[in-house]
Amino acid sequence: MTGMPSGKLVNLPRLADRAGRFKMLAIDQRDSLRASLAKATAREPKQVTYAEMATAKGVITEVLSPHSTATLVDPVFGLPQAVKLIPADVGVLVANEDSYEPAGAGGKQRKARSIDGWSVSKAKRAGANAVKLLVYYTPEASAEVVAHQQRFARTVGEECVREDIPFLLELVTYPIQEPSADTPEFARKRPVHTLASAREFSKDIYHVDILKLEFPGDLKYARPFSQGVFDGKDRPAIYDVEQVQAFCQELNTAAQRPWVILSGGVAIREFLVALELAVVAGASGFLCGRAIWKDVIPKYPDLDAMRAFLVDEGAYNFARANAAAQRARPWFAHPRYGDWENVQLIGAGERWYQDYHPSFGSV
Amino acid sequence: MTGMPSGKLVNLPRLADRAGRFKMLAIDQRDSLRASLAKATAREPKQVTYAEMATAKGVITEVLSPHSTATLVDPVFGLPQAVKLIPADVGVLVANEDSYEPAGAGGKQRKARSIDGWSVSKAKRAGANAVKLLVYYTPEASAEVVAHQQRFARTVGEECVREDIPFLLELVTYPIQEPSADTPEFARKRPVHTLASAREFSKDIYHVDILKLEFPGDLKYARPFSQGVFDGKDRPAIYDVEQVQAFCQELNTAAQRPWVILSGGVAIREFLVALELAVVAGASGFLCGRAIWKDVIPKYPDLDAMRAFLVDEGAYNFARANAAAQRARPWFAHPRYGDWENVQLIGAGERWYQDYHPSFGSV
Repeated sequence: MTGMPSGKLVNLPRLADRAGRFKMLAIDQRDSLRASLAKATAREPKQVTYAEMATAKGVITEVLSPHSTATLVDPVFGLPQAVKLIPADVGVLVANEDSYEPAGAGGKQRKARSIDGWSVSKAKRAGANAVKLLVYYTPEASAEVVAHQQRFARTVGEECVREDIPFLLELVTYPIQEPSADTPEFARKRPVHTLASAREFSKDIYHVDILKLEFPGDLKYARPFSQGVFDGKDRPAIYDVEQVQAFCQELNTAAQRPWVILSGGVAIREFLVALELAVVAGASGFLCGRAIWKDVIPKYPDLDAMRAFLVDEGAYNFARANAAAQRARPWFAHPRYGDWENVQLIGAGERWYQDYHPSFGSV
Repeated sequence: MTGMPSGKLVNLPRLADRAGRFKMLAIDQRDSLRASLAKATAREPKQVTYAEMATAKGVITEVLSPHSTATLVDPVFGLPQAVKLIPADVGVLVANEDSYEPAGAGGKQRKARSIDGWSVSKAKRAGANAVKLLVYYTPEASAEVVAHQQRFARTVGEECVREDIPFLLELVTYPIQEPSADTPEFARKRPVHTLASAREFSKDIYHVDILKLEFPGDLKYARPFSQGVFDGKDRPAIYDVEQVQAFCQELNTAAQRPWVILSGGVAIREFLVALELAVVAGASGFLCGRAIWKDVIPKYPDLDAMRAFLVDEGAYNFARANAAAQRARPWFAHPRYGDWENVQLIGAGERWYQDYHPSFGSV
């Protein structure tokens, strides 16, 4: 038996399909979207206006959200429109972080930062079914940065307990010593970092309900894909796909919570391979943004062309991702729960309505 | 343009079908269910245990909730199980009142009372999509009782604004001067009382999102049904069905909010006629309990027999009610909104996430 408080127990299934599989859309990008919109219109990122960000997000949300079991939006540009665009049978996930603050030598490290004027409590009141937090996390960061990131995740996790709303924690590593993430050196570190993150943030003190994890390897450096299969560029093969599958299995063991895979902006074909490998290992689905919709951005500001592209190519990408997730492990079948029958309301019974609030004795 | 805050705007559609029609199940009965369970087992109501109440509600919720667009439960016996029984694509409505306190001469009047240890805030945290409040209301009550009922409704309405959760207010009249509600005298008063209630509680100060109203007449006293059509008992005809239809139209004019019809425990055939008349007049659907499931109670404590009856007869009743509601007016097509396009998020735009909370300037 695994206990869950009422708010989490009601809302977690609302992010998944009836079988408990997550097929979620991410459209909470801010800096990366701003950069792509600037590029599409040959301007500087800072020239992209609020209205433009909101419009681009609105078009993507309107067309693709109906294909998802839940849609992740940011509260600044996204949510104010998404409340009317996300269908009533699709869950609403709201991001809680504001990019990051550079830290450490040369500003190469990343410290989490909250959105000024936003909170878990606002997300809950506004109708969110879950709160998402992105934490950049590498074991190579300074002890101070590592501690900050852990503390930040823990604080948001505790707020989610207090507000009784599911907490989805996304962990993304980044290179400190390497010049770029697209290097054999960093590709070698990916499995190590991803596993370390999954292990750390599975601890009870973080109160995570779903882990959103990176793929534990870089398929562009994996045999038989390294010879330009995904993007036409040749790279050295530093592992083969069987090894990567083993990383996925280790990740599944490390993740003591239901976990989903993110796309991190890779091309759709690479994402579909990663998703399949993750699903075989035990992932409960995906939370994917750019791999599904990024190719629509160059059409901006032609909204009709964007819509046509999303209806055709975007929906096709989504259908393939959804199909790959058909074999995902339902969240309640994760060893943490074992089976839907084992998921129990904390304190169910005669005194529940009096004793409830979930934070009593929990945080 | 009609503004709604985010939490209400996200959650209101979750109570309805995709077209905006409410096909809602009520299983929040307490005293009436306790009495029926006692009768079914030849005992006194006070002998019915918590576990028995919970079990009976659980069986009904499990079988019938999937047929509904939203299910209304009470927080004492119902919600602790319903969190696992109501499907993720069905809205969760939670009752906020604890029967009533007798008042006035001979204790014939009714004063609203809250559930000790429960609150709108708890309902919101626990994952409710809306809060329901039943207020007994007759213009014949003393000024003090009338004022109490109005104040009570207003307080809960304000709490719903603060928690940003839709507020469904149910109004039920009752006889003070007549020996019973099943009298020609009281049947004559029904349209008057129902209209007065709809008019009063449509005022902005109550912050009602959906009115749950009684049928504005007693069809058992209406030609051509008065000669025992519904229950085999002959009664005088005090109006005919055309007059009742006119009452429905007046009620629709009086109700300045989307409204649904309740069943008040009448037989299913009577409810279906009432629902059809209400829908023609402009109701946005129904919130129906006993008319759909009451005939299952005599089978208690044989849970298998209950389940079989609900799967057969209960689902059949629900299918007919859902079919009758197919012509209901979508909630957003009510004159208060006019059209989905006119429903707008309050404060949408660049500063929304900072300015939000809905109670700012609202209550």
